[in-house]
Parts: sequence; C-alpha cells; structure tokens
Amino acid sequence: MTPRLTLLTDFGTRDGYVGAMKGVIASITPRTQMDDISHAVEPGNVEAAALTLERYWKRYPSGTVHLVVVDPGVGTQRRGLAVEADGRLLVLPDNGVLTRVTAAASTWRAVSLENEEFMGPERSATFHGRDVFAPAAAHLARGLALTRLGPAVHDPVLLPSWPEPIRREDGSLQGRVIGIDRFGNLATNLPGDLLQGAVQVEVEGRRIAPADTYGEVEPGALLALVSSDGRIEVAARDTSAARLLSVEVGATVRLVWEAGAQAGE
Amino acid sequence: MTPRLTLLTDFGTRDGYVGAMKGVIASITPRTQMDDISHAVEPGNVEAAALTLERYWKRYPSGTVHLVVVDPGVGTQRRGLAVEADGRLLVLPDNGVLTRVTAAASTWRAVSLENEEFMGPERSATFHGRDVFAPAAAHLARGLALTRLGPAVHDPVLLPSWPEPIRREDGSLQGRVIGIDRFGNLATNLPGDLLQGAVQVEVEGRRIAPADTYGEVEPGALLALVSSDGRIEVAARDTSAARLLSVEVGATVRLVWEAGAQAGE
Amino acid sequence: MTPRLTLLTDFGTRDGYVGAMKGVIASITPRTQMDDISHAVEPGNVEAAALTLERYWKRYPSGTVHLVVVDPGVGTQRRGLAVEADGRLLVLPDNGVLTRVTAAASTWRAVSLENEEFMGPERSATFHGRDVFAPAAAHLARGLALTRLGPAVHDPVLLPSWPEPIRREDGSLQGRVIGIDRFGNLATNLPGDLLQGAVQVEVEGRRIAPADTYGEVEPGALLALVSSDGRIEVAARDTSAARLLSVEVGATVRLVWEAGAQAGE
Repeated sequence: MTPRLTLLTDFGTRDGYVGAMKGVIASITPRTQMDDISHAVEPGNVEAAALTLERYWKRYPSGTVHLVVVDPGVGTQRRGLAVEADGRLLVLPDNGVLTRVTAAASTWRAVSLENEEFMGPERSATFHGRDVFAPAAAHLARGLALTRLGPAVHDPVLLPSWPEPIRREDGSLQGRVIGIDRFGNLATNLPGDLLQGAVQVEVEGRRIAPADTYGEVEPGALLALVSSDGRIEVAARDTSAARLLSVEVGATVRLVWEAGAQAGE
Repeated sequence: MTPRLTLLTDFGTRDGYVGAMKGVIASITPRTQMDDISHAVEPGNVEAAALTLERYWKRYPSGTVHLVVVDPGVGTQRRGLAVEADGRLLVLPDNGVLTRVTAAASTWRAVSLENEEFMGPERSATFHGRDVFAPAAAHLARGLALTRLGPAVHDPVLLPSWPEPIRREDGSLQGRVIGIDRFGNLATNLPGDLLQGAVQVEVEGRRIAPADTYGEVEPGALLALVSSDGRIEVAARDTSAARLLSVEVGATVRLVWEAGAQAGE
Repeated sequence: MTPRLTLLTDFGTRDGYVGAMKGVIASITPRTQMDDISHAVEPGNVEAAALTLERYWKRYPSGTVHLVVVDPGVGTQRRGLAVEADGRLLVLPDNGVLTRVTAAASTWRAVSLENEEFMGPERSATFHGRDVFAPAAAHLARGLALTRLGPAVHDPVLLPSWPEPIRREDGSLQGRVIGIDRFGNLATNLPGDLLQGAVQVEVEGRRIAPADTYGEVEPGALLALVSSDGRIEVAARDTSAARLLSVEVGATVRLVWEAGAQAGE
C-alpha cells in the first residue's frame, strides 16, 4: 500500500519552504506520494484555509494524511494537533483551521504534538511546518499510531466566525458570504435545500433569482444556485459575481420569501 | 505498472476544487501518480488551454491519462469526452480544447461521457470536474476500456480560431500571435521551416531579423527564431518581446521576403 | 526503490513547458515520483533560485535528483551540469545557481552535459529544460552513473554577489538583505549565532531589537530573530517587514553592539 499525503499551506512555493517540508517527509517515508492541494492560501487566513480543507479532506480515501500549515501563531503558545476524523489523518496548528472537519466528521479524536521523538532535529522559532508538523505527518504516513504523538486534546480551537444564519423578524434568513473563489462565485452559509419555491437571494440590495444551472441564464447575468458544497452560491455566467456586486467575504446575504410564500421549514 | 494521470485546469489551487478532484481520483485508483500540469489557465480560456495541452500530451508515455477541465460551458448542454489518441487517454469537455490533439494524432477515437456507473455519487450543476471528469479519468487509469464510458463521438467541437496563415498578394505570409508565454515570447502560427534565407518577421510595423539562438543578439534586442514547438517565435533576449512590442494574442505577424528573394515553397 | 525527482523552474505552469519536461521524464523513468518545488521563481533570477535551492536540496534523502532550470543563458555558450553533492544529484545550468550547494556540501563532483546519447531527440535553441536537462535528470533517476553524462568540471560558475559580512571601523558588522519571502520577512547574510547579548539590528536607519519568537512582540511590531536557515532575519509579527521598512533585496543591514558591549567573537 502506497501512503498518500496532501499539503495545504500559505507559504507560496517560491521561497523553498514547501520544498523543505517535502524533503523532510521524503526522508522519513520515501515511498509516500505527496499531492499539493495549494500553497496559495492568503497568508495567515485561517478561515479561508478551513473552507478549502472542507472541500477535499473527506474525498480522499481512508488512511490519507492531510498536512495543513497556515499558522499565523507560530512562535506563540498555540498547540500543534494530530487528528483522526472518519479514518483520515490530519496534522495542523490548533488555531481553528480544523473547525469544519470536526463539524462534518462522525467521529474524531485529537492529540497534541508533544513527543519530541517525532520532531525534526532542528527546532526553529519560525518554521514549525518543517520542524514539527511535517515530521509528525510523515510518521503517521509510515503507520505510527496517533496516540504516540502526544496526549489527547478534547478542546481544539474552533472558529467563532462562521455562525449559523439568523432568522429575522420579517421572515427572511440572514447569512453571509464565507468565501469567494477564483471565478468570483460567492459561497454563503445558507443551506442549499432552502433554494426552492418562491424565494430570492438578496445581496447588497439586489434581488437575484434562483436557477438550476448556468445554462438557464444569459452570459453576464447573475443567478443563485446550489453550490457543489451543498450551500447557496451566488454566481454570474461567464463572469465574476463578486466584481458585478462589489462584495467581499463577510458581506450580508438574505434569503427572502415572496409575499404569501412560507419559509421552507 | 503504476498508472500516471495529469491535471490541467483553470481552477487555481486556493479554493480546494483541485484538491476535491484529486481526492476523488485517489479514492478510485489509490496507486495512481498525479502530475500537476497547471491550474493557472486564464479562467474559461479554451484556446490557451488547447495550446498548453499541445505542449505535453504526447511527451508522456502511452497509457497516461490527461485530465483537462477548462469548462466555461459547465451547466449547459456541452458534452464531456474521453479520447484515445496515439495511445494516450484524455478526458475533457467538448468545447474545442481537444483541437490540437486531433490535429497532431495519427489515430484517435472519442466517446461521450454518459455512463452514470462511472460518475460520482453527487451530480452538482457547477462542478463536473469533480463529479464527471475526475471519476472518468480515474476509471481509465485503473484500466477501464474507453468504450465503457459512453457512445462513440465522431464530431468533437474544434476551435475555428486558429486558421492557417494566409498568402497575401505582395507575396508575404500573414499569420498571428497564438500565445504569449510567461517570458513574453510570442508564439505564432507560422511554420518554423520557413525561417530561412532572406526573410524577416514583421510585427506591428517593425521588422525583426531571424537568429538561431538568443546568444546571437545583444541583451534587450528582438529576434525571430524557431520555437521549441517548431513554429516561428518572436522573442527578446533577457526581456519580454510582448512588452517591447505592445502586442496581445491575436496580433498580426507577417513573414516578408526581401526583394528578389522567393517564398520557400 | 521508487526514485524521486524534484523540479524548480522560473517557467510558471500556465504555458505547459513544465508539463513537457514532466512528460519527457515520465517517458524515460515511468515509476519516478516528481515533486514540484516551485515554478514561480522570478524569471531569470539565478540568485533567488540559489537561495531557494539551499532550503531543500539536502533535506531530501540521498539518491534524490534535483532538477533546476532557471536559465537566462539558454542559447549562449553556458554549460549544463550534473552534480553529485553529499549523495544527492543535481542537474542545472552552469550559471551560479549551484553556489550554495557547493558551499554547504562536504563533498561534490560535477560533469558537463555533453553526451548526446542522453539528450532528447529534439535540440531546440530555446528549451534545454526539455531537450537536455530533463533527459539527464531522468537518466540519473533510473540509475545512470554521473560520469556517463560528460567530462568532469572543476570550475563551476559561482555567484560573486553574496559576500561575507564586512566588519566596519565602528565595530559594527555590515551585511545585506539576500532575500524577501512571501511573508515579507528579510533574510540576511548575518550569522544567527551573533544575535545574542547587547546587540541590535539596523535597517534603513531603524534599530530593531532581537527576540526569540514572534510571540514576544506585539502584532505589527518589528523583531530580529534567528531564521529557520540559521541566519539573522528581520520580521514583523502578523505583517510584512519588507513593507514596513520599504526595503528590497540588496539593502544594507548592520549588526550594532551597544556601548560597552563587545562583538561576540
């Protein structure tokens, strides 16, 4: 069995920091295949990394090791974690990047990376990706038991910033933009199964009609649809909805039922 | 035998969409090695993707699976294709991105991706890369016969926008810039074997002399040479020809024989 | 044993040049795993590539093949090299990119890439990455002896532009910024072991106090610390030191001992 290990960081590739981590991993577990997820996460943006991680961690087969190093707290007291969630293994800083994994997993358990036996020979103050996280991930890929890495952790840091949508007095449901992808599509925290019946999506005072696919609207037109993540997404055919609407992550999005229609639940 | 699968998309890596596809592939065919070609194709630019694909598809060994997802038509009626061309396998949307493969292959055959048995469990309206193309590519990497994926296709969409050069009345040959690479070199549709004898290349009213290599001209100077693709390329030593000449893809390029000289054919 | 081969270039990925090299490699040595280090080196910046290479080459296990193609001199008379350094193999143009490898290796030997038997069938004037360097690297990954590639070289080109720090008359030590990473951290050529006692780091007339880790200073504050490379680094917590100080690569950095204190040696 060939182990497989994925990498997600905010390092960029140009400086060779990702290369250093890959070298450490290849030295510990030479046969492991490494898949780059991305090294282009916005520097220090833990919430963006959490949303990215949600999109792939469980699509990989059981036994995969997911290494995530988006770590603005390096050099502070934040812990490092190793986690087993629904059969996948994760190694990451304890800063909230794990939030959507624990939310989606049937079962999970975590340990704190404290066993120095499984750290690298160097212990820099600024590059735990190379000296702590990569060695831990590589040892897991080799088959090391999770509990060998350190003591159990029951209170990982979770992001407070992605609340459930709020029901307002006028009956509308208020959510927000949680991510904007390369195409300018707006990911929201509104559940996709509400996008049926006489409902519209309001962004920046503009009402947008639902559609099943891009093909139903003219090029350049806005539409609201169920995203590949199962949430409501605001998009524009062949162009960027974010640019058309001039919105950023955090913007308010409302689901508005037309007069006489009822909220779906 | 370890199968190998390459990926070319316009997704960027930051949002985790490529990660989702890789996870789907690793789940279906765990031992497959995945090589990233690029995820930085300009969003929706099918012609650019076709030129990129031309540069690598046949350099990989027979049996390689090339997955290409540059798919501005997702959610419309465009078909998905699986293709065998000179022993390599390709999975891609039927939007013209295949154009230069069929032009260069000795033999090819294509099928339409219709067999739901080889699609993913989800069927989103916006992410066929994950739900249709990646599963098909992974099943091919596992050894599935091409014809199992769907019925034969004999009329794939081909790009009309890359015509042969035109012979003009004054004897010159008129082509165009078909791509500009990261270094600012201008790829043209003019055949490289014409770049001999008393001939010059004219771009934006400026005549540029042929040279065999960069080393023959001074730093900063323009030259015309035979590109690594076998076509005429306009470059500048140690700098960007595109910036020096202020040209974009589509610009006219003329091959001009000097008085008394004859066109080579 | 699965061979492993890494790639560092300034090609970007978008144009398919990296894909062409990977295809050549996969055709020669199908089981080799390829790890991308980066394709985002600033075009033609040999010094930046040398600093990047220093960060990973020796962290990979013995037997790894490192392919580096940052080659502004393609098409001139510069040689191509294959090198064995402390058990790792490197293939790269002879333009100085090797500088920090030979500086750090206990033993190394080099040959000039001249044996046409191990070059590709094409010999373009502009793409030795595909036609010369990638085939040589692939043959080494297959187990070819280094000396089969060409005659020994004892005088590889070394970069003159990274001098040792200079001791000034006032007792301070003057170095310079040798790199700026994605986070805006300033790498210097000042040895990290000097950062102790009553010493400060001066950049652009501003004095910066040493600290052991980011956690010791307030968000937004500057600090000087020992980098993961073992040199003095100037950073700012949660922001970019390069932007705060408005400095570029090459800027002067001084290590200044306070009155009464002595230089450490």
